[in-house]
This record gives sequence, structure tokens and C-alpha cells, in this order.
Amino acid sequence: MKPNAVPMNDLSRLYERYKVKVELEVTRTLRSGWWLNGAAGKRFAANFAAFAGASDCVLVANGTDALELALRAATRLDDAHGGEVIIAANAGGYASCACWHNGLIPHYVDIEAASQLASVQSVLDAVSSNTVAIVVTHLYGGVVDVRAIQAGLVRAGRSHIPIIEDCAQAHGARIGGKMAGSFGDIATFSFYPTKNLGAMGDGGAVLTSNPKVADDVRRLHQYGWDSKYHVGLPGGRNSRMDEIQAAILDVLLPDLDHRNEQRRAILTRFKSAARRRLKFVDGGDGAVAHLAVLLCDDRDAFRTFMKDRGIDTDIHYPVLDCDQAGWKGLPMKGDQDLGISRASIGRLCSVPCYPEMTDEEVTRVCQALGDWEAM
Amino acid sequence: MKPNAVPMNDLSRLYERYKVKVELEVTRTLRSGWWLNGAAGKRFAANFAAFAGASDCVLVANGTDALELALRAATRLDDAHGGEVIIAANAGGYASCACWHNGLIPHYVDIEAASQLASVQSVLDAVSSNTVAIVVTHLYGGVVDVRAIQAGLVRAGRSHIPIIEDCAQAHGARIGGKMAGSFGDIATFSFYPTKNLGAMGDGGAVLTSNPKVADDVRRLHQYGWDSKYHVGLPGGRNSRMDEIQAAILDVLLPDLDHRNEQRRAILTRFKSAARRRLKFVDGGDGAVAHLAVLLCDDRDAFRTFMKDRGIDTDIHYPVLDCDQAGWKGLPMKGDQDLGISRASIGRLCSVPCYPEMTDEEVTRVCQALGDWEAM
Repeated sequence: MKPNAVPMNDLSRLYERYKVKVELEVTRTLRSGWWLNGAAGKRFAANFAAFAGASDCVLVANGTDALELALRAATRLDDAHGGEVIIAANAGGYASCACWHNGLIPHYVDIEAASQLASVQSVLDAVSSNTVAIVVTHLYGGVVDVRAIQAGLVRAGRSHIPIIEDCAQAHGARIGGKMAGSFGDIATFSFYPTKNLGAMGDGGAVLTSNPKVADDVRRLHQYGWDSKYHVGLPGGRNSRMDEIQAAILDVLLPDLDHRNEQRRAILTRFKSAARRRLKFVDGGDGAVAHLAVLLCDDRDAFRTFMKDRGIDTDIHYPVLDCDQAGWKGLPMKGDQDLGISRASIGRLCSVPCYPEMTDEEVTRVCQALGDWEAM
Repeated sequence: MKPNAVPMNDLSRLYERYKVKVELEVTRTLRSGWWLNGAAGKRFAANFAAFAGASDCVLVANGTDALELALRAATRLDDAHGGEVIIAANAGGYASCACWHNGLIPHYVDIEAASQLASVQSVLDAVSSNTVAIVVTHLYGGVVDVRAIQAGLVRAGRSHIPIIEDCAQAHGARIGGKMAGSFGDIATFSFYPTKNLGAMGDGGAVLTSNPKVADDVRRLHQYGWDSKYHVGLPGGRNSRMDEIQAAILDVLLPDLDHRNEQRRAILTRFKSAARRRLKFVDGGDGAVAHLAVLLCDDRDAFRTFMKDRGIDTDIHYPVLDCDQAGWKGLPMKGDQDLGISRASIGRLCSVPCYPEMTDEEVTRVCQALGDWEAM
């Protein structure tokens, strides 16, 4: 890192902000001698469920596992093998992974250009009798209007199709004032360190207010056990969150809304500085600015321009799921009809956006954005 | 826990023994702000590979994931889907899980009564052109003679079949003086807290000296990525070890051999106290006494007898994989021919055995065993 560089993220600053409480809770958890499936996890799961507006929360090892287990629980009532799951193709591949691990077929749908989120109409157009689930990814902290998808499913007589809200980038985001994750049948979260609510290692969660689904996920995340060593449900695996991570997340949770405000304020400043050549992705009113993503022509030149000013950039994500070389041979649908996704993929660029950015760093990014605009 | 009870395990004692170093390393890791894929993991992976006699070590989220990824890496060169994997049915179900998640069929083989380990002859008899891998589980810390299996495969002209050594219960065990895990094509480890080498949360590892297999596992444990966000290999998932856990394991690793000696000494005392009615499972010369498992008639009465003396017991494991209710409909082979496994399953009982047991506790267990023998 150059002196005075603006890094994409700097988790040591987050740590500095919370270290007294974190070290107290981590030490307390370590000293308890109880490091999995214990009191810290129970407490955080209850607190996070209450925050997110769900009645149940199962803590798992990471956000991709959360999607995999949620899909399995949502689709298991039927023989879903070979069924289709409607998803966007621009969200980093995590939902695609989860589909294939369940023997399900991703059916890709296109996005809205301004928000980079799955288009409601595309989702509804893709629904068929083969559809076994819809994964709605609240990408970059922006929110998809889940209510509009639900209304469309009702109109089409397909309201039985479960909706999974992928909230890996949308902790605390709101849709019409109500928490993202509380609309669909299941919600999944990742607590990767850079997330709006991040652990200091891997972690994830599955939330639902359906007791049957919660019970299934709870069994599936430990081998399908009904009780220790007794398997009642096929398709299980081992996917648990460490007690240490749950204790850390419980320290950070009370500040989540406040930290999201800080993210939003930074993104608002960036947007004011870039109105012509650069177009920041707009996630809607209740969005939580997980990433500050913009669309630009001549991306390589823009990245070089920023780098010369000591400002890191990144790309989320560089390849559509359907175009990943390693997944070429896998079953998929809809990959021919992704005009906006394809037009966007080469123009996406992320600039630093996280609560611990200094005012001076935000100002430097704004200045650089303004300079690029003025060129 | 009753006053003066002898618990099955008590990890707070382990913690007490190592807490100064553990707290130093955990705090150092937290303060670094780098919590996944960092220096601590790199260091522990190198140290553990050197200890175990492999050239590569990939750290993953847990031991079941390790088996799943190892199976995928070992079998991917062919179209292995639907292929058979030879395993024992008495090892808790972890390898069976890993098979089904790869679309592979467990082919169960019977065990030796005295060791409760897969019988070499049964393994060799089960090998056919459908066999895509053999998982050899070094159960309870005992060791299977992998060399004898390899020699048999050579004689049968089937030395291409990969052997995966499941060392989840055999950290530091030796086969003819050489480390268990260094004989097969791949070895997998779990670092569940109660293991001979245990983390303070979940963790696992895949070890191999085959660079191609190592490269595949390294990609598969992060989505199949060749580089960040670029998928080169299908079938990947997210399975990483937290830096915190790697740092903790690196503190404990240098004491592993010494702690294994302590376990062995405890088991030796138990064996001396029980020679007639109770038969302790014998894992062989290089075994590391992960669990002290005995075979007894009238198990319920024995457990009540021990409980009345304040001594906890457990059962590892109560159900054969092929008899799990939740797995009834899944594809499997060999489940009709498991005479010794079936004759043993109702007679297994574990008594406490871990390095931090006090001399007084060990004496109390010995006394109780002797009293039962004398009845």
C-alpha cells in the first residue's frame, strides 16, 4: 500500500473501533471451553432474528452454505432434482454454486441497468412449471422489490414457488421501511469480514419465519441429525458458525444501522461528485451501500486514473456466472437472454466505501471522481 | 455435572493449559485485521504438512468438507459420477455424507472385531471396475494397514484406485513408524475441538504430496477459483479455515506427540483394569487413543453402573451409516454383508480419555472397570 493510499477496505480500523469489547467477548468465549453450538451462538441468533424480523435463525459456516441449505430446505417437499432456480447472473456465482450442489439448474434472468438488480419482469417471465425456487439477491446493498415479485406470482397462480432473499450484501437494508430478508420464505446472510455486518472469519445464517423450514435447516446444517449421531433427513452437511464469531457479531450488531448510515453518507457524497461520465449504481431508498459500484466507459483508463491518485478500485464481479470457464459444461438456462447484464459487465467498477473511511479519504475519492468527470 | 463426576471431556482444562499462548496469538491475529487466507493459515499449513509428511496442506472449514473435497479431487479425472467408494459403515457417517454430496455411491465393507477398523480383506474383496476411491478411516485413533491395501491393489492390477486416509481421529498416529496420512493419495483431517489436535471452533485440512491434486483442492475449496472471481474448475464450494483457528492450532501442534502419549498411557491403564468382561478396542501399535472404546455385553447396565459412580460414557457411534433412517432411500452397496459391524454396534461404549484427565479420575475409571469385571 502506497503512503496516503485509499485502500478498498481496511479491517484493522474496524478492529480498532471495537477491540475492547471484541477482546473481552472473545476471551470470555475461549475461556468457557464451549466453542460450537453454545450460548454465544444462541444469543446472537436470537438477536439477529429479532433485528431482521424473522422468528428463526440458524447460524452456518458461510453465506454460500446458507444459500445451499436454504435451497435444499425450500425445495425438498417435492422431488426438486433437476428443477430450475431463477437467479441473476451478475452476483458473483454464489447462488449458482448453491444450485449445482443441490442438483438444481440455474435459470438466469436479466437485470435493470440503473440498479444492477434482477428485473422483476424478467423474473416473472422466467417462471414456469419447472421453477422450484427464486433467489432474489439484494446486490451491493440495493434492494429488489420482493413484494412486486410476490404479487406477480399470485397473479400467475404460482404463489407456491418459494422466494429466497439473498441478503449477503444487504444486512439492515429496508424495502418500503420493512427489513430486507423478512419478505421471502427464507433469507440468507453472509458475515464475511467486509460485509456490512462482518465476522472476523467466515460465518453465515439462514433466517425464516416458517417453523418447518427452520427445523429442516437446523437438521441439514449438522448432517441431517434429528439428535446427535441420528440422521433423520438426507442431504445434510456440516456447516456451523464458531462461537467466537457469534460473540464478535453480537458486539457489532447494535451498531449496524448506524454503520449503514455512514456507508450511505459516503455513497451520497460520491454520487454528488459524479453525475455525467460516471453513473453510480442506485440500489433504491432502503439500500445500505455495501459497495460503491459505478458504471463507466473506458474502465481500464478510469482504474489507472484512480490508481495514479492512490485510490484502489475493484470489480464486482468481472464475469457473469454463465460465462465462467469452469462452469461451461454445467446445466443452465436463460444465458442467451442477458442483454443488460452483458452490456454492464465490462463497465462495472467499485471504489472504496466503508464506515471507517476518513473524511479526508472520502474527499480525495470525490475529488478524483470530479477530475475524471471534468476531463 | 455431579460434584466429582468424571466428564467425557472438559475443554476448559485444555484451555487453561494453553491460554497464555492462545490469547497472545488470537489477539495478534485479530489485531492484524486479516482474518481469512492469511499468514497464520499459511504458517500452520506448512507446519502441519511437515509434521504429517505431506508436501501440501489445504486448510478447510471442517473434516467433512475435507473428505468431500478430497473425494472430488481424487475422482475427477474420470467421469466418476455414480462410481463406488469403499468405506466402513461404523465411522459416524462423515464419509457417507461426502460420497453422496459428490454423487458417489458408498460401498460398505465389514470390519475386524478387535480393532473395529475396516478389514483389509473386505476392502480388497469389494474392489471392482466400479470403484473410484477407497476411504480408509483410522477410527478411534487406531490405524488401518494402508500398505496391505496398496499391495493388494497392485496384485489385483488396480493400483490406480486412489486411497483417501481419513485421519480425523488419528493426528500423529503411526503405521510401521511412519505417519498415518502419508501412505494414501490424500489424507483428510478434522480439527473439531475434542480431536487429538483440536481448534476452538471448526476446522479441517486436506493433505497430499500430489501437486495436481493439491492444486485442485486449493481451487475447489474456494468456489473453483483459478484467481479471485474467476472459476476454472466445477464443483467448488466455500470451505476455509479462519485465521484465528489456524493460529490456535499452531500453538497446539508442537505438543501433539506428547499429548498423544498421555492419551495412550491412560488407555493402557484402562486396558489393564479390564481383561475379562470388557474388551477395549485395539487400534494397533501406532494408535493414538483418540477415544477409549470398549465392547461389552449388557451395555445399558454397564452405562448405568458407570453413571452411578459419576463416570460419563458415550457411544461412538450408535448407528451404522447404512441403517440411518434419513439415508434409507440413498444409493449404497454392501450393506447386507456387515456381520461384524452389526454384531459390534450394540456393544460399543466409550469412557473418558483425554490428556487433561487427572490421575485421580483415571484411577476412578480403572476402579469402576475393575469392579464391573469382578461382578
